[in-house]
Amino acid sequence: MPTSELPAAAPALFTDRYELTMVAAALADGTAERDCVFEVFARRLSHGRRYGVVAGTGRVLDLLPHFRFGDRELASLREQGLTDERLLAWLADFRFTGDIDGYAEGELYFPGSPVFTVRAPFAQGVLLETLVLSVLNHDTAIASAAARMVGTAGGRPCIEMGARRTHEEAAVAAARAAYLVGFTASSDLEAGRRYGVPTTGTSAHAFTLLHDDEESAFRSQVATLGVGTTLLVDTYDVDQGIRTAVEVAGPQLGAIRLDSGDLPTLAVRARALLDELGATSTRIIVTSDLDEYAIAGMMAAPVDGFGVGTRLVTGSGVPTASMVYKLVERDGVPVEKASEGKHSIGGRKHAVRRHDDAGTAVCEVVSAAPVEPRDGDRDLVVPLVRGGVPCSDLDPRAALEQARAHHAEVRQALPPGAWALSGGEPALETLRT
Amino acid sequence: MPTSELPAAAPALFTDRYELTMVAAALADGTAERDCVFEVFARRLSHGRRYGVVAGTGRVLDLLPHFRFGDRELASLREQGLTDERLLAWLADFRFTGDIDGYAEGELYFPGSPVFTVRAPFAQGVLLETLVLSVLNHDTAIASAAARMVGTAGGRPCIEMGARRTHEEAAVAAARAAYLVGFTASSDLEAGRRYGVPTTGTSAHAFTLLHDDEESAFRSQVATLGVGTTLLVDTYDVDQGIRTAVEVAGPQLGAIRLDSGDLPTLAVRARALLDELGATSTRIIVTSDLDEYAIAGMMAAPVDGFGVGTRLVTGSGVPTASMVYKLVERDGVPVEKASEGKHSIGGRKHAVRRHDDAGTAVCEVVSAAPVEPRDGDRDLVVPLVRGGVPCSDLDPRAALEQARAHHAEVRQALPPGAWALSGGEPALETLRT
Repeated sequence: MPTSELPAAAPALFTDRYELTMVAAALADGTAERDCVFEVFARRLSHGRRYGVVAGTGRVLDLLPHFRFGDRELASLREQGLTDERLLAWLADFRFTGDIDGYAEGELYFPGSPVFTVRAPFAQGVLLETLVLSVLNHDTAIASAAARMVGTAGGRPCIEMGARRTHEEAAVAAARAAYLVGFTASSDLEAGRRYGVPTTGTSAHAFTLLHDDEESAFRSQVATLGVGTTLLVDTYDVDQGIRTAVEVAGPQLGAIRLDSGDLPTLAVRARALLDELGATSTRIIVTSDLDEYAIAGMMAAPVDGFGVGTRLVTGSGVPTASMVYKLVERDGVPVEKASEGKHSIGGRKHAVRRHDDAGTAVCEVVSAAPVEPRDGDRDLVVPLVRGGVPCSDLDPRAALEQARAHHAEVRQALPPGAWALSGGEPALETLRT
Repeated sequence: MPTSELPAAAPALFTDRYELTMVAAALADGTAERDCVFEVFARRLSHGRRYGVVAGTGRVLDLLPHFRFGDRELASLREQGLTDERLLAWLADFRFTGDIDGYAEGELYFPGSPVFTVRAPFAQGVLLETLVLSVLNHDTAIASAAARMVGTAGGRPCIEMGARRTHEEAAVAAARAAYLVGFTASSDLEAGRRYGVPTTGTSAHAFTLLHDDEESAFRSQVATLGVGTTLLVDTYDVDQGIRTAVEVAGPQLGAIRLDSGDLPTLAVRARALLDELGATSTRIIVTSDLDEYAIAGMMAAPVDGFGVGTRLVTGSGVPTASMVYKLVERDGVPVEKASEGKHSIGGRKHAVRRHDDAGTAVCEVVSAAPVEPRDGDRDLVVPLVRGGVPCSDLDPRAALEQARAHHAEVRQALPPGAWALSGGEPALETLRT
């Protein structure tokens, strides 16, 4: 009998097979318990972006307690040919008992920022690699793109509506990431259920086409949703649509939505017509393949809100954040792959953001040794997990609100060049000491 | 007490809020039961691609029985302000009872191909929009990119290993989509569990760095995984790594993996060295930011297999398939949004692929009327759901194998120009009659 619930996912299997074969070999040769430090960082900001936004940390911490190998997982591993008995016995008892430090969710990051650091016995730390990277790379890519849109929109609301353009679960995470950086709402009801993201939406062209004419559709919508609703006016002729909308809803109509055509031009015309019809407080919402550049192109137009879909959930050209999960220390000794020597510093990192007297950020300092504190320095690395237990007991909704507030605060300190949409250098230089 | 299971997702809430507000209004005005046809199609193939591959159909059909509004979903809708009692009562009883037709999963598609068609009362059909598009747009984008890689690799195995570069659930769907079009394996253990995709993987640089030296790491790996394993030889010096690998495993070593540097050059050198050491049957696997172009650049090199990650799971530049879900018929009357008139044909569609005497596909015929059959025509639209019940009773693994076989068969019929990687026109023209 089908229910509304899907068979539950198995987070411990959101894992690349090679992690288990490495654990098997390390258990056999005695290295599995070596004390290790794994660090997540990005070598670059893609596409000349000026800053990135750390996102997904809360989701990783939510998943961690479920990262267990129960009968279902172990049976599947056997079926997949992972039959090493020592490995399976160890996995059956597995529980993460290590420490995790990292940038707070919503924090800004730059090349080399140690955004997430796991200290644990090798076998425990290596197991988390894929899941940690999946979550952080996806959510960070979306948040980093979304932050540029919010920054460009200059206070006008941005609404996330890209669920249909990405995997159904990625859509929920994308809505969360967008809200984190200042989007005001999402179309995705599951994001509302899981994370308390405000949800919004009224109607599509199909609703107008369903009815015998546009007026019938508008009357129906207003009867059910009230005059404060948003009417989609571009199914047939936009001017006529606006006239019909105001005729049906009256001048108190909440908003109209434009979803096609040359939006800046249409918005100017629509505003003039709405004002002429007395609907001076009716807002104009635009949608249709928007991104930060399209938003920038409409800042002079009388647009009151932006609905962003495809380009948001695909990271506006950067669908993944290029973060890597690297072993940087083993038994207290820094280690590094030879070909990466130039860019790596071994060991667990300290990181501070340095600010000038006016409170503007001037650089990021990343160091294997504690950083000599100066006025205006802010420590970036905070404890996230101790002995396998999350340091915060906030529920997922409260954690998201906290991260959203943190992001809003720290982005204020960025230098003005950070808001440039053109490709260039990171807004802050990272000093490695 | 945490378990290995996540709280189950609620597929009915993988839905844009506006679908529910439309249903509420349609229930109030009596249009909810109007017989409607919604069609999923893509107006174009992005980036000058020559063909697309329909993927995700099986996942939609798996999700459909769970698309129900239980107490959990209804409580959330109330909390989100959707308090219309008529709507909530209707949702509580909701079960999809309509018909679905479409292209078989794995089938090729072109602009305007009616890949998925839902016939149902308006309220039922409109509810499925977001979920159907999320699944088809994501999975189709990945499959379409993966098919180009498989086509370019010309029989050499391609292995999917991009889980870390995309959302953890999208990773499972991506592994499924890649296998569908001919990838031989995936790194993702959950794809193995859920869909029976063969999984593979041996070790990462971290495993070498964990050990006191490369030789110890190789000895450990071979002891646990056998001489048939794949040794990663580029942590330090590649030549020395290969010598050590063969010394440790003997000439029966299964494979080496190269994950950095100029791969074609390295592969030539590695082959010569392996042969010199007597390891003439040891294969060379390459990984590191591969895509169809990088694979093409290595076809003259002695490479025996390609591991593809980031560029696969992000659709190689096209992370979403641009499919739309449009109301095309209402109460038997074709409908269309004015601004799209040129490209739409109302009503439920018939579609055939036309072939010449040699069996090569020559065009796609899409028509609102049945197509007069000719020799070499193949019907593309098959029944998927009747009266809410899936037409196939294959389990998800068997359905995936069936789709994989179907894809392998139909791609044989494409004209040679379809394999071009350069941007251009679709390989088949779509005739709309």
